[in-house]
Amino acid sequence: MSGNTFGKLFTVTTAGESHGPALVAIVDGCPPGLELSVADLQRDLDRRKPGTSRHTTQRQEPDEVEILSGVFEGRTTGCPIGLLIRNTDQKSKDYSAIKDLFRPAHADYTYHHKYGVRDYRGGGRSSARETAMRVAAGAIAKKYLATLGVRVRGYMSQLGPIEIGFQSWDGVEQNAFFCPDPAKVPELEAYMDQLRRDQDSVGAKITVIAEGVPPGLGEPIFDRLDADLAHALMSINAVKGVEIGAGFASVAQRGTEHRDELTSEGFLSNNAGGVLGGISSGQPIVAHLALKPTSSITTPGRSIDVEGREVEVVTKGRHDPCVGIRATPIAEAMMAIVLLDHLLRHRGQNADVLVGTPVLGQL
Amino acid sequence: MSGNTFGKLFTVTTAGESHGPALVAIVDGCPPGLELSVADLQRDLDRRKPGTSRHTTQRQEPDEVEILSGVFEGRTTGCPIGLLIRNTDQKSKDYSAIKDLFRPAHADYTYHHKYGVRDYRGGGRSSARETAMRVAAGAIAKKYLATLGVRVRGYMSQLGPIEIGFQSWDGVEQNAFFCPDPAKVPELEAYMDQLRRDQDSVGAKITVIAEGVPPGLGEPIFDRLDADLAHALMSINAVKGVEIGAGFASVAQRGTEHRDELTSEGFLSNNAGGVLGGISSGQPIVAHLALKPTSSITTPGRSIDVEGREVEVVTKGRHDPCVGIRATPIAEAMMAIVLLDHLLRHRGQNADVLVGTPVLGQL
Amino acid sequence: MSGNTFGKLFTVTTAGESHGPALVAIVDGCPPGLELSVADLQRDLDRRKPGTSRHTTQRQEPDEVEILSGVFEGRTTGCPIGLLIRNTDQKSKDYSAIKDLFRPAHADYTYHHKYGVRDYRGGGRSSARETAMRVAAGAIAKKYLATLGVRVRGYMSQLGPIEIGFQSWDGVEQNAFFCPDPAKVPELEAYMDQLRRDQDSVGAKITVIAEGVPPGLGEPIFDRLDADLAHALMSINAVKGVEIGAGFASVAQRGTEHRDELTSEGFLSNNAGGVLGGISSGQPIVAHLALKPTSSITTPGRSIDVEGREVEVVTKGRHDPCVGIRATPIAEAMMAIVLLDHLLRHRGQNADVLVGTPVLGQL
Amino acid sequence: MSGNTFGKLFTVTTAGESHGPALVAIVDGCPPGLELSVADLQRDLDRRKPGTSRHTTQRQEPDEVEILSGVFEGRTTGCPIGLLIRNTDQKSKDYSAIKDLFRPAHADYTYHHKYGVRDYRGGGRSSARETAMRVAAGAIAKKYLATLGVRVRGYMSQLGPIEIGFQSWDGVEQNAFFCPDPAKVPELEAYMDQLRRDQDSVGAKITVIAEGVPPGLGEPIFDRLDADLAHALMSINAVKGVEIGAGFASVAQRGTEHRDELTSEGFLSNNAGGVLGGISSGQPIVAHLALKPTSSITTPGRSIDVEGREVEVVTKGRHDPCVGIRATPIAEAMMAIVLLDHLLRHRGQNADVLVGTPVLGQL
Repeated sequence: MSGNTFGKLFTVTTAGESHGPALVAIVDGCPPGLELSVADLQRDLDRRKPGTSRHTTQRQEPDEVEILSGVFEGRTTGCPIGLLIRNTDQKSKDYSAIKDLFRPAHADYTYHHKYGVRDYRGGGRSSARETAMRVAAGAIAKKYLATLGVRVRGYMSQLGPIEIGFQSWDGVEQNAFFCPDPAKVPELEAYMDQLRRDQDSVGAKITVIAEGVPPGLGEPIFDRLDADLAHALMSINAVKGVEIGAGFASVAQRGTEHRDELTSEGFLSNNAGGVLGGISSGQPIVAHLALKPTSSITTPGRSIDVEGREVEVVTKGRHDPCVGIRATPIAEAMMAIVLLDHLLRHRGQNADVLVGTPVLGQL
Repeated sequence: MSGNTFGKLFTVTTAGESHGPALVAIVDGCPPGLELSVADLQRDLDRRKPGTSRHTTQRQEPDEVEILSGVFEGRTTGCPIGLLIRNTDQKSKDYSAIKDLFRPAHADYTYHHKYGVRDYRGGGRSSARETAMRVAAGAIAKKYLATLGVRVRGYMSQLGPIEIGFQSWDGVEQNAFFCPDPAKVPELEAYMDQLRRDQDSVGAKITVIAEGVPPGLGEPIFDRLDADLAHALMSINAVKGVEIGAGFASVAQRGTEHRDELTSEGFLSNNAGGVLGGISSGQPIVAHLALKPTSSITTPGRSIDVEGREVEVVTKGRHDPCVGIRATPIAEAMMAIVLLDHLLRHRGQNADVLVGTPVLGQL
Repeated sequence: MSGNTFGKLFTVTTAGESHGPALVAIVDGCPPGLELSVADLQRDLDRRKPGTSRHTTQRQEPDEVEILSGVFEGRTTGCPIGLLIRNTDQKSKDYSAIKDLFRPAHADYTYHHKYGVRDYRGGGRSSARETAMRVAAGAIAKKYLATLGVRVRGYMSQLGPIEIGFQSWDGVEQNAFFCPDPAKVPELEAYMDQLRRDQDSVGAKITVIAEGVPPGLGEPIFDRLDADLAHALMSINAVKGVEIGAGFASVAQRGTEHRDELTSEGFLSNNAGGVLGGISSGQPIVAHLALKPTSSITTPGRSIDVEGREVEVVTKGRHDPCVGIRATPIAEAMMAIVLLDHLLRHRGQNADVLVGTPVLGQL
Repeated sequence: MSGNTFGKLFTVTTAGESHGPALVAIVDGCPPGLELSVADLQRDLDRRKPGTSRHTTQRQEPDEVEILSGVFEGRTTGCPIGLLIRNTDQKSKDYSAIKDLFRPAHADYTYHHKYGVRDYRGGGRSSARETAMRVAAGAIAKKYLATLGVRVRGYMSQLGPIEIGFQSWDGVEQNAFFCPDPAKVPELEAYMDQLRRDQDSVGAKITVIAEGVPPGLGEPIFDRLDADLAHALMSINAVKGVEIGAGFASVAQRGTEHRDELTSEGFLSNNAGGVLGGISSGQPIVAHLALKPTSSITTPGRSIDVEGREVEVVTKGRHDPCVGIRATPIAEAMMAIVLLDHLLRHRGQNADVLVGTPVLGQL
């Protein structure tokens, strides 16, 4: 299949550009009988929505989603779920100036060379605008996973140079950064305010965790759970790195240190991040994402135009000085989509093993 | 499809366990007319082969591959290429002791819970033994890519705590570590010798680079080139992290620092690692992998058996104290497979754009 | 992937029920640079549209399609094309009566057993209503194929007991049946009028032909061109049989009779229907479809309800007495989708062979 | 994926040419814990094997299969099953004469144009020789389906002009034709003997039936069970038509005649062939295949060579005068593969519905 469908049994297909009439998605393979309403999707859409604090783009998008199919009398029918979000606050004229330029670190250059034409309005398809549909689809996956006791949550673990230690989930939703340490919030606020004065942007690190995942999810050797998670998370705009569990820290670890020993009470540590041999172990699934700084900044930069002439580029328009700030719900969504897809695949092949086990028993 | 096939147009399907009779692969979608012989595959197989230095497992496997189909009169026919490697040096009795145990940090636990049964001999399917077929398939991709001027190479950039700066490609093949700094080799040797005395293992970091990649490869939004690379590289045994370009360093970077500016001579830097918006930019594709320390060590560890009883586990058998040492050819193979798959996909959809361009012109 | 996506490189994903708010489709992999407007899609949608003659359902649906993405300044961008058609003339109350019944020969019974729940309004997802989106997607494929000189057309070759010999393409669009023999139309009209009086329905046979298809399309051994055509055509509601070329007549043929001999002027016959060994030969691709009689008829029939109680069913609502009458544009669409998907796949793998050939030269 | 893999969850990938060293297959997604031995595969391989009567090719191939992986201690492990069959009786020199010719009705012409090169020995990949691996893979699917009470069987329903009425399954395996009417066998023998004297070939019709299939298999709207069956069966060499249930007879049927009415005892007829709306109904799945006459005959025919020069072709070598005679086990295999793939997909998405039902209860 082409590049805009993700998943094997639970599949998400999306379309839509930043400044086109609408975003659309088709979510296929959702099990039937799940209670589902617009409200279930809207909650996460609102968490990702722009313009909710002074630290994100001021573009105003209500991101109201319409369910077009697949739900009847309040429950999923097993048929594909069509989703629609109209774009309402496009200001395409902001972009006519960069029509023939390649903004540094943007996809302008590669889209131009790949397709020969490009929708330059707000980055077109390459804009993070499309992630709204990932969040809507992910909310469906989260809702189903919740019926099995699986919970997917994320937080910001680093903003630029500021590392953020995890204190508790309580505060995460109470600030604009999904910061798990309330005491750090003022420092983050101050950093962002200075960043805007500097007309610059910065990167961030996000951590996503799934709890209650049953053992057995993952299809070695290529469709390992961690490999599909890496695929899903790296497919998010601006992501440049993905770690599972100890990640790059594993490089300097010794085997005696890294291996998670087992007792009758369970594992004594989780360097594996909940995945062994590409299959979930029953421990929490832990992933970290590195997001690069926003490419759209008003500080002039060197580039060329479509004719190869050197130009100085200043990116106007309304942009997030740190795309990482709104990335947490997107990362949660992609992890949830991968987990549900693998749950369905696992049930299909291994129902014989699963019958009578808690995993299927819970269903 | 199930989990043992990778790719869309250039697909690699493999089967085979560590101590079964043989490894087998079917490589489908290779363009016709490519000169191909066993020697083309054997070179990389020998680079990955065990027992070539005292720093890797002493299992002796010639890893001689047989081409069963898809090649006629020395050239590929466009039909699927069947590959066979017989296992010759299994010592399965080494493993009967751990038949009912879950070795810490191994896939024993997850395979047992997923499938209900497991081939415990040498880890069965979860053993890195299967990577021999990735290397064989990757060699075919490399050969074809070479006809387009694309070259995929890798090296070790860190061994445990020892960081290795890149000096030159010259020395990489002259040492057991794929170390790009000859001066560092003695230090690596000494470290590994001590590690064995400590009956411990350690992690490593590998860097893979593809040069000569034309712009345009990658299928947003989900099948981005970097996302498929992350999938491919994370699917390699023991890999816990993947970075593209600046990777996790992007987190602390500012936009003015990260963005790769353009002049009429080309890009001034490569923080992007050759991928913008999920599509190749024409710059070198740069990826880094984190490999965890080998799980099989002779230092006793705590675990449980299939009945949940606590046991002390000592992993005998012949193992690599650092799986990263033989990982470079595997990482190269997976990157080559991804690049060829995306080249074919790109040509299919965008032939209109490509006609008359160097990319297709070279063909 | 799940069951609502068709194709590998040119993919069509659809959603939407007969009486839901809308039908939606995402067409992915369309080459960039193709001139495309709503008018290109509307023409075929109007050919399939209900209520255009007294011989089809009287449901009034304008079937006006909206392009939501993938087209910029009148040309495709290579990004996914989102399509939306609002349902306007649902009369769901017609269906409350059959809420708990299984209408004979309908999908009620199987949807109930598969999903546990079902949208009973007008057959929900199982209604031929969804074929509107196949036609819209097919129109895009047709438009691109036309730029290569490929033309896909169909006609009715049999209505119930009345066989229709092909006279010419001229009259096909001038009657409600897509009948290629104007002299036969009055007989068809009379037959249909009597059928309505009998409160019965009847089957039909449709023939679809693609001319100008270059040799080389098809991916043996499983994704043969004829196998994918069979898949695509059999996936159309009510289709019970598919033939390529001589089809079932081949059974009684001798090899000396069936084989299409070749001269320097080309093939002397086309029993193969344009496909040899699963690959297009350059001759016209010829396929025949058998459509069963409409299941929804007002003559009472025996059935059971969800509790297993025996009931007599009379299907009210507005239905086509012969679903085959509107099937020609649907069959054309599915053939066009398969041909474009295979063209892209073929170009991807075999660009080396194609460079400098008319096939790619035309692009 | 490319064209040599079939299925989504239960996938079969094959490689190998008629006169290459071997045939190979990788069967992925087979549920774990299934008792499986070479004997289970050999039985069906022997039913398809050439040279067992004077009515098939005299090529002698023992078709002995080796299981390379995926089975441990007599049971499947859930890991991919590698299969190998060595070719032993190639007589490639028979073919050098047709090296530069296109045999009428053969794939020579299309392979030449698609790939630019071709393995002309015995048709290379386009030979029905590859179907041996379909039969081996199908035997695995049959074995698993049998544990659920599903049985897949086939027979010859027509040989050339001779229609064969079904009498009983008893005699089917007792004759060389899989003829279900013992009284007809002498007539078939006489017809085939005359056919050889005429140096000609003939077509055949095969019927395949699956009994005990639970309701619910099939993934509308594109991956309907009947659509995937059509794909699978049309992908068999020489097949030109596929019917489900009443098939082309539906065209002349009235709705009152075609619809299968239901009582509390079940369906009163099976015009649907066990599939309603693309989903199995619990009735027997019935499919019919039309196979064209063998293209390889010794009666001279007109053709051209690779230079376009007209030539007269006489096809030597050893061939089946009716490929349909050995097609029954192949058709059974493909139907079994489709059914198992859909069973796994159905279980994956609909486990909630299935828990506690006979379908999953039996597992």
